[in-house]
Amino acid sequence: MEAGDFKDFAKAMTDYITEYLENIRDRQVVPSVKPGYLRPLVPEQAPQQAEPWTAVMADIERVVMSGVTHWHSPRFHAYFPTANSYPAIVADMLSGAIACIGFTWIASPACTELEVVMLDWLGQMLGLPEQFLARSGGEGGGVIQGTASEATLVALLGAKARTIQRVKEQHPDWTDTQILSKLVGYCNKQAHSSVERAGLLGGVKLRTLRPDNKHRLRGDTLKDAIEEDLKNGLIPFYVVATLGTTSSCAFDVLDELGDVCNSHDIWLHVDAAYAGSAFICPEYRYLMKGVEKADSFNFNPHKWMLVNFDCSTMWLKNPRWVVDAFNVDPLYLKHDHQGAAPDYRHWQIPLGRRFRALKLWFVLRLYGIENLQKHIRKQIGLAHYFEEFCNKDDRFEIYEEVTMGLVCFRLKGDNEINEELLRHINGRGKIHLVPSKIDDVYFLRLAICSRFTENSDIDLSWEEIKSCADEVLKGVSKN
Amino acid sequence: MEAGDFKDFAKAMTDYITEYLENIRDRQVVPSVKPGYLRPLVPEQAPQQAEPWTAVMADIERVVMSGVTHWHSPRFHAYFPTANSYPAIVADMLSGAIACIGFTWIASPACTELEVVMLDWLGQMLGLPEQFLARSGGEGGGVIQGTASEATLVALLGAKARTIQRVKEQHPDWTDTQILSKLVGYCNKQAHSSVERAGLLGGVKLRTLRPDNKHRLRGDTLKDAIEEDLKNGLIPFYVVATLGTTSSCAFDVLDELGDVCNSHDIWLHVDAAYAGSAFICPEYRYLMKGVEKADSFNFNPHKWMLVNFDCSTMWLKNPRWVVDAFNVDPLYLKHDHQGAAPDYRHWQIPLGRRFRALKLWFVLRLYGIENLQKHIRKQIGLAHYFEEFCNKDDRFEIYEEVTMGLVCFRLKGDNEINEELLRHINGRGKIHLVPSKIDDVYFLRLAICSRFTENSDIDLSWEEIKSCADEVLKGVSKN
Repeated sequence: MEAGDFKDFAKAMTDYITEYLENIRDRQVVPSVKPGYLRPLVPEQAPQQAEPWTAVMADIERVVMSGVTHWHSPRFHAYFPTANSYPAIVADMLSGAIACIGFTWIASPACTELEVVMLDWLGQMLGLPEQFLARSGGEGGGVIQGTASEATLVALLGAKARTIQRVKEQHPDWTDTQILSKLVGYCNKQAHSSVERAGLLGGVKLRTLRPDNKHRLRGDTLKDAIEEDLKNGLIPFYVVATLGTTSSCAFDVLDELGDVCNSHDIWLHVDAAYAGSAFICPEYRYLMKGVEKADSFNFNPHKWMLVNFDCSTMWLKNPRWVVDAFNVDPLYLKHDHQGAAPDYRHWQIPLGRRFRALKLWFVLRLYGIENLQKHIRKQIGLAHYFEEFCNKDDRFEIYEEVTMGLVCFRLKGDNEINEELLRHINGRGKIHLVPSKIDDVYFLRLAICSRFTENSDIDLSWEEIKSCADEVLKGVSKN
Repeated sequence: MEAGDFKDFAKAMTDYITEYLENIRDRQVVPSVKPGYLRPLVPEQAPQQAEPWTAVMADIERVVMSGVTHWHSPRFHAYFPTANSYPAIVADMLSGAIACIGFTWIASPACTELEVVMLDWLGQMLGLPEQFLARSGGEGGGVIQGTASEATLVALLGAKARTIQRVKEQHPDWTDTQILSKLVGYCNKQAHSSVERAGLLGGVKLRTLRPDNKHRLRGDTLKDAIEEDLKNGLIPFYVVATLGTTSSCAFDVLDELGDVCNSHDIWLHVDAAYAGSAFICPEYRYLMKGVEKADSFNFNPHKWMLVNFDCSTMWLKNPRWVVDAFNVDPLYLKHDHQGAAPDYRHWQIPLGRRFRALKLWFVLRLYGIENLQKHIRKQIGLAHYFEEFCNKDDRFEIYEEVTMGLVCFRLKGDNEINEELLRHINGRGKIHLVPSKIDDVYFLRLAICSRFTENSDIDLSWEEIKSCADEVLKGVSKN
């Protein structure tokens, strides 16, 4: 493909995606295709000769869009949001053109240095303690990971390294294997499934602890578990505090957990994947009270802060533990400036990394802090707007206090009726939700996902849910 | 940012990156900045109000480009290539606009299904055995990972799961921990550092074995190591065969390793990260003879096949072992079609994933197989063209047989003189190379990286190297 063709193609794509996004409201949110729909739509083999870009363009609706679940439709309320914004799309074009691999400083100084500074900008926006920021001149600093799963795993590996060293100082005769078999970490039973996966991957025990009746992990529960394990000769080494659980957006009481962790020299990692974006608004920072007691903090601008996937930002007070755990240093990756700036390959699982700081830079500048705050506040406002509908309809109940852009609700009654309700809603295909279940109580989750969502969209979603409830309850009364 | 502004911005960016790439030859390949250069160039904090896109555009040269190492300059010969092409950049724009997270089939059927079919297209292009392809109707199939490091780790986890189950059948009384402590994997001493990291991460022993005098791991060496370990009560479970080592692009003798692995029920993973792209040309497939004996195969179209990072394609004969190792299945991720199509979240370390199959689709169609083959052959031709220069100059020697786009060469003489040579080359800043060292022999690596590279660029690189050699050797004769 020559430069001239590229210009035509990229500009046609710009028009296409503008059209797509600005009119996304009109598309069916979940496609009606069955598994295997796509294979018959394309040839069995790649073409021998180059095709014109117009042929590819012509296939996008037919092959791709016919099977896309439209995450940015205001009718999409499943999971949590994933970000999508015009500035981030343009930044990724530039990232694709520079296409450097920023594994070391010298491999592209701009790629490393813009990331260091952007993580400082963002850390300040959240009100993170200075110890997490590179500008403080201390050891702390931030990094962009691909996903929160990776951040959880990286923190676990740092915790493992730190604890093994500490234990070896106390017990010089113990082997790594012996120590490893005694390590135990903790998280809320409602923590994300990736925490459990991190434990599996890292080969250490992770205990899930029972939250209080608001689904928050409390200090006393953690303390009891630790003391029990210490009595049994285990070594508590890692705690994940979840700020905004996936099931119901509950917030562990970080302040309490922090005290317990600090008094036992346990690594405290904060997983604020979804809700962390809200901390750019000072009025929500009460939910991260105690963050200064944590060792690492992670949230995903790629969820709720308008930076396209993947951009999972993580700050560490002392990255040395992670860096040392990963430090495999072949000659072809050595360079003259080692130590003067971070070599981010030591901060992450993969070796390669794209120039992702550009998206953060573009989004922060082209929105500005105020517009990003407006975006968060508007979406939380929309959640409360939907909550009101539920509250005003006697048939419904709210399952969990609404603090962010997620409303957990259900029909008063048993699980079956709520499962039936969700089947109706998703079956009709106008809006899309997923359920969750805590302590055997099944409920529906309505997340405000799209940046295009307006009150009128919530009106429509509510009408749809209400109408499905009518159907379901009529069915019940017939039986 | 409104739609109208986005159109202007994206189109301006299209023009900018066309200009950048088409004239990249004229830029200094490695910037002359020092660590810390960037911070003074930007404000200390993110702006409160939105800035216009023209302000961001104006800062790209000043802030970013002044510190970029230009990986797509024909003067860049370091590491291995990373891909960059116009079709892939446009595909990523579309991926950014759809911005779905393809963790399950229902989360966006097109995202999963296009990936399944593209991996079949690509597998056929490489001549992979049908057992690796989804279209065979068996269990096999492909997936896009982020990096080869992740593929190596995923294969290791599959191998671990398979072996633990087998051993438990033989020894029902053994615990997982007992079995884990006995597991041992193997790779060439010249395998990529990420193999060692996968072992660290997965908590298992990995033995690096001595290659033959052509730096290839041979079957007999592996067999001896396995027999020794079996005598000592260990459980050999995993072998990584490297096709195209990073240091010198040597190829392990896969056919021999395959026989040994198959006779001991050991998982054989093929890491062809760089060189795998060459297998789209039938004349290079002799280097992957025996691939039908492998359990998993991985290469990076994001290195040498013009698909922008990240796109590391991996095929598994039996993904079940990986899927089961990872299967953590919360209610909010369950759906009605589980089992009918792959839920790729079970095939990888992170939970989230972008719509990366689009890049593969666009590149395969807009180049066509023939142009991709031409690209590979041309780059290998350029490597031989440079090799000829070295061969004709008595002062130089070729360190390793040139088979792909990498030339390993050195001045006849000691390591110091070659270190001095590289310092001169990189110090003058016209071209960029990195060194390697095998068995204490230091040599220079010249990789053909940019798709813009022509014979005239190699002429220039050779002139530069020759001129640096003149300087260095003059300095030596003076002393």
